[in-house]
Amino acid sequence: MISPPHSTSTAAPPQRRTLAAELPGLTGRQVTLQGWLHRTRSLKAVDFLILRDRSGLAQIVVTEQAVRALAARLPAESVLEVTGLATASRQAPGGVELTSPQLTVVSTPQAAPPFDLFRPAVPAGLPTILDHAPATLRHPRLRAPHAIAAASVAGFRATLDALSFTEIHTPKVVGSATESGANVFTLDWFGTPAYLAQSPQFFKQAMVGVFERVYETGPVFRAEPHDTARHLAQYTSLDAELGFVADHRDVMRLVREVLAGMTAAVRERAGEACAVLEVELPTVPDSIPEIHFAEAQELLAAHTDEDPRGEPDLAPAHERWLSEWALHEYGSELLFVTGYPMAKRPFYTHPDPEHPVWSRSFDLLFRGLELITGGQRLHRYEDYLRALAARGESPEPYGGYLAAFRHGMPPHGGFALGLERWTARLTGADNVRLATLFPRDLHRLTP
Amino acid sequence: MISPPHSTSTAAPPQRRTLAAELPGLTGRQVTLQGWLHRTRSLKAVDFLILRDRSGLAQIVVTEQAVRALAARLPAESVLEVTGLATASRQAPGGVELTSPQLTVVSTPQAAPPFDLFRPAVPAGLPTILDHAPATLRHPRLRAPHAIAAASVAGFRATLDALSFTEIHTPKVVGSATESGANVFTLDWFGTPAYLAQSPQFFKQAMVGVFERVYETGPVFRAEPHDTARHLAQYTSLDAELGFVADHRDVMRLVREVLAGMTAAVRERAGEACAVLEVELPTVPDSIPEIHFAEAQELLAAHTDEDPRGEPDLAPAHERWLSEWALHEYGSELLFVTGYPMAKRPFYTHPDPEHPVWSRSFDLLFRGLELITGGQRLHRYEDYLRALAARGESPEPYGGYLAAFRHGMPPHGGFALGLERWTARLTGADNVRLATLFPRDLHRLTP
Repeated sequence: MISPPHSTSTAAPPQRRTLAAELPGLTGRQVTLQGWLHRTRSLKAVDFLILRDRSGLAQIVVTEQAVRALAARLPAESVLEVTGLATASRQAPGGVELTSPQLTVVSTPQAAPPFDLFRPAVPAGLPTILDHAPATLRHPRLRAPHAIAAASVAGFRATLDALSFTEIHTPKVVGSATESGANVFTLDWFGTPAYLAQSPQFFKQAMVGVFERVYETGPVFRAEPHDTARHLAQYTSLDAELGFVADHRDVMRLVREVLAGMTAAVRERAGEACAVLEVELPTVPDSIPEIHFAEAQELLAAHTDEDPRGEPDLAPAHERWLSEWALHEYGSELLFVTGYPMAKRPFYTHPDPEHPVWSRSFDLLFRGLELITGGQRLHRYEDYLRALAARGESPEPYGGYLAAFRHGMPPHGGFALGLERWTARLTGADNVRLATLFPRDLHRLTP
Repeated sequence: MISPPHSTSTAAPPQRRTLAAELPGLTGRQVTLQGWLHRTRSLKAVDFLILRDRSGLAQIVVTEQAVRALAARLPAESVLEVTGLATASRQAPGGVELTSPQLTVVSTPQAAPPFDLFRPAVPAGLPTILDHAPATLRHPRLRAPHAIAAASVAGFRATLDALSFTEIHTPKVVGSATESGANVFTLDWFGTPAYLAQSPQFFKQAMVGVFERVYETGPVFRAEPHDTARHLAQYTSLDAELGFVADHRDVMRLVREVLAGMTAAVRERAGEACAVLEVELPTVPDSIPEIHFAEAQELLAAHTDEDPRGEPDLAPAHERWLSEWALHEYGSELLFVTGYPMAKRPFYTHPDPEHPVWSRSFDLLFRGLELITGGQRLHRYEDYLRALAARGESPEPYGGYLAAFRHGMPPHGGFALGLERWTARLTGADNVRLATLFPRDLHRLTP
């Protein structure tokens, strides 16, 4: 028989922990910090330890010989508890440092990070950074994008919550490779083949029939066979869909609100991270400038060496040129390109009724790159059947999804934003992997 | 050459839409509603149409013959735009109805829902409900759990945001089937085998080294071969992890805060859904009662027909009995069971240093069912090597994850809560699938 252990609930409560950022208000008080040894600087009569915690950095001044002897043996990234006196100091970060410290080693590293985490620059290439992510992400510059990403998602949700959207959670495994057929991952689902979802497109549309306005923030998967700086095999898609729109412009107005909310949230919640990376947040105009796809092609033909007229899509170089143009023309880092040719948009896209070769869709360009894709969708069952037939596709594999449109759906539309791409653009990262915690791609499945 | 279409930006702005819930403040005004035809009741001289939108229901009174003739032909779930006069009426829901209406049919259903959506009860079994989810989820009783789920996640995040947690997004595809080996889905990853992640466990632990406090709300996957009322192959896991804990009790205190925040958010944001389902929200006590696993076994041996002492885990019947006991003993619908035997917990579990056969882990029981699992984790690299060796496992497949612990990790712990299970318990659903938008299981991959 196993007997119960003694109760340990009478143990003394632990010393209350102070965060580095709280120090300035505590001058003259005895406090206890906990964190990682970020850096050690040894002078003749004194050691300066820099402790890093989730709130920032704190300077600890060690003069007592016994403590100096201990400090000298501590490798960077040692986890420490430090009790000492909060003391005003002009030289210390925040104007306060810890003096007369007692050090307790909580945990000792077994290996050094691949590079010093305290130096402002990151002296390593992408593979080293990614291979050692649990250590390298501790560098303030490499951590910062993820604080900005978290704030961005919070702003996305807050904006939509205020507009009475409902958050949904939809399947990431689907029975048929619906959206494009290409670039899907195949899965063994209890013995039958299944596929990782490339987007929550059909689910969010179906849910317009239930909640009118829905959003999801979750992973999507593309078996992207190309190794580029802007493609990932898994990324975080911020999706929204709303019913009772007049046309795609209602969706574009929503996009504006969401981008304003995300930008404000980054400013409020990730100011420190923005400062570390010298992020310049975009100004989101009351009305984001827009240009029709056909007009964009006219501009490109008139002002560049190329003549893209007749092409069904914009090349990356065209997107960069148009972004530059919008910046000069309107002073805006954001530009909607509307009306993409139906031929290049998915079958659920709503055509422009007056000019059915064009669509009621849009891309949003941000600093030279497509950030958001959206538009109005078809909402009548018979229109779906017609659209699939026109593309030579059978409605059969879409049966489960098309069912929603048999039950009465309002005009609706939505958009999707790639979180990592947004964060990379904001932070000036030259590779989207620097805005992804543990990227997955053609060559990378660990860590 | 393709010429640009005419601009349509000079079109008249559409009539502003009024929501059903806004009607009571608009008596005497001409308004336009948009929504679904929820129900039609025809009397001799008048038809009553009930329109459903995201905010609720509105009654429309039709007396004019031409409009009655149109209304008589409208099937349920027709999407309508209705302009009329908001008129005070004692009989109408909210005390206001729409009179002298003009009806516009926006979209006509091609098929009827499998059952009437306006009747209070749902006269169908689970397969019918799930097979026709895009239609059946429109029933107020079937929609309500998902409004409660959305509010719950918002409360989870708000609580943790206020405690300076950072949201993370981690890979759902991993290179080795780490956590248990059993019940994993296998994937073809560009020609090599990979696995769907069963939890973000290792990633959230690694991120404690970066942000100290992290959470994730995302899908996890279990190739659950059993067809039960409480298991899903994909569910939404609400995960949190925090550093610098004294022991598992710090995690339990966090669980209390989170549950209080989730309950408050459901009350504030999903009151209507709670009313529809007559949900009784639990009272979250300042301190949730707890019992050690060994004491729980003593109780069960003394008061039930079974003697579970020596067993390494609690059976579902035991969990139900303990929940009842906590309700009688403490008046609490929540009960922590702590100290589960190390033998039954994952290798990363922190043992109780004084009694290493027991662990610093816990389950939270809620209304008879395990809702949350959590505890303190190992934080020293050498402890991980020892723990794996003791289980006869090689550290090799864990290399990428164990790396985090080579770089100095603080004592930490965390927990995971299954969103669908929480929602099912709250709403009294007898099957977790009723709290899942589009469930995935052994037999179900659509819609």
